[in-house]
Amino acid sequence: MQTVNVAVLGMGTVGQGVAIMLIKQQEFWQKQLGCQLVLKRILEKYHDKQLDFDRGEIAMSGNWQDIVGDPEIHIVIETMGGIEPAKTFISEALQSGKHVVTANKDLLALHGQELFAIAKEKGVDLYFEASVGGAIPILSALRQNLTADPLQEVMGIVNGTTNYILTRMAKEGGDFSAILADAQKLGYAEANPASDIEGIDSGRKAAILSTLAFHSQVTLDDVYIQGITEITREDMIFADQMGYAIKLLALCKEVEGKIEARVHPTLLPKSHPLASVQDTFNAIFVKGENLGEVMLYGRGGRPFSHSQRHFG
Amino acid sequence: MQTVNVAVLGMGTVGQGVAIMLIKQQEFWQKQLGCQLVLKRILEKYHDKQLDFDRGEIAMSGNWQDIVGDPEIHIVIETMGGIEPAKTFISEALQSGKHVVTANKDLLALHGQELFAIAKEKGVDLYFEASVGGAIPILSALRQNLTADPLQEVMGIVNGTTNYILTRMAKEGGDFSAILADAQKLGYAEANPASDIEGIDSGRKAAILSTLAFHSQVTLDDVYIQGITEITREDMIFADQMGYAIKLLALCKEVEGKIEARVHPTLLPKSHPLASVQDTFNAIFVKGENLGEVMLYGRGGRPFSHSQRHFG
Repeated sequence: MQTVNVAVLGMGTVGQGVAIMLIKQQEFWQKQLGCQLVLKRILEKYHDKQLDFDRGEIAMSGNWQDIVGDPEIHIVIETMGGIEPAKTFISEALQSGKHVVTANKDLLALHGQELFAIAKEKGVDLYFEASVGGAIPILSALRQNLTADPLQEVMGIVNGTTNYILTRMAKEGGDFSAILADAQKLGYAEANPASDIEGIDSGRKAAILSTLAFHSQVTLDDVYIQGITEITREDMIFADQMGYAIKLLALCKEVEGKIEARVHPTLLPKSHPLASVQDTFNAIFVKGENLGEVMLYGRGGRPFSHSQRHFG
Repeated sequence: MQTVNVAVLGMGTVGQGVAIMLIKQQEFWQKQLGCQLVLKRILEKYHDKQLDFDRGEIAMSGNWQDIVGDPEIHIVIETMGGIEPAKTFISEALQSGKHVVTANKDLLALHGQELFAIAKEKGVDLYFEASVGGAIPILSALRQNLTADPLQEVMGIVNGTTNYILTRMAKEGGDFSAILADAQKLGYAEANPASDIEGIDSGRKAAILSTLAFHSQVTLDDVYIQGITEITREDMIFADQMGYAIKLLALCKEVEGKIEARVHPTLLPKSHPLASVQDTFNAIFVKGENLGEVMLYGRGGRPFSHSQRHFG
């Protein structure tokens, strides 16, 4: 049986989660894939870091050359986040003929085009499904199943933290700042929540969605962004009385040949499928000429633990 | 530029809809695929049938040999429905190295395994995405994106007619038989509605979903089926008062290594994402060990026209 060797970069919560899944599900995947998927190497700058699992024979190193220089590594999974050194590592991995899996939306929203060009040139794959919508297979759908139809619009709730805050504001009638503080305490919002509540995280995802849906090249700078920090208790109450929900939406449209990508709080009629997406759930709504309306719904972040969400 | 030639079998509403799309979207698909997708031949037993579109140079014949014998036909799209002659045609098309696309769930639920074996042997594809959930890419998701996770449960609203009737019963408080009669008048239910209201159509889809989700071989005979004909006005009112919606669900589970596939009316808490799926919409809910809960939602039937639904 063929063996496919994997390296995981970064042993944060996400990286450890991936490593544990690779170890735990080896037998299941062997049946599914007809080959052995083996976690062979780990990159972690603190290479004496205590891990949540027994790494057994798996080599752990703080030196990137140990990984990129190993011709037996076929797939590199990047979970470090941030722009550098992730960009250099991914680019060098692709250059040396390794497939790469990443959920690094900051990087993809800024340098996606460049990295995809390298992957194409080298004939390897750059997978990034989890960068938008977590477990929801929206990016594959946009790249494969839904490509037969000219798409008109993609809109979605793509940030779990803001949807959690808005859901609680709607249910409890509380103030934004009080609920944000509580969300931070409960682990639904980060200590520095700016990227989520100001809509930047959703903006990055809007760039990725627009790029795929309209076969274009949209970066974060092209996206109009407004967060949820100005939403008040009163806004929520008035919206509710008029039959609307307030949701932070990423909106991508093609209008007369021009692509429009926006993120802002939006009034949605309560009968709209996106209006009933609650708590940290994500959902993406796609409208096509022939397919009509399709919605994909699921957990945005990793399901491992609520208090350690990382994918936004 | 490479040319890929297509034949469409059957010029009913679905077949004509497919033909019109093939003609209308030729330029769009050329850009998407980098090759020309050309409708070359049509099979229609009434070969002098009046069509809704101008077929120009496209050859129309009542003789299957004209199509299976043409080595230039690469893809056969079957839209005739029923078991025979669809089964013979699909099987001969695969045998002669042609890819086949079908939404014939009656056939797949009974003879899917046999046809897939031929496709595999001949190295050609047998696509059947539209057989469950219409435009919703659920089958690809089960075959590709969601295969990385051991699935625990698949459940869905997979029949538009029954969901339309139940939605109206819930909203209007009407009787089953009165609303069925009205649905037939409006074109949401067929003149002979047995296959829909007795749950057979959902049962076929449950067989296909179970087969894919659990890598098994489930046929219609393995599915426990109960339709919606016994649901009363009072059932709906009591369910509503207790905070539940009544939906006809296809339920597929793996319980202690045994696959359980069932179709029956089910009480769903109103907060469940499937509870708010209205009218003729379909939705399929997938639960996996690591991915948590994912739901795909969209139109079950073809979006062309409400009064001529065919995919159930």
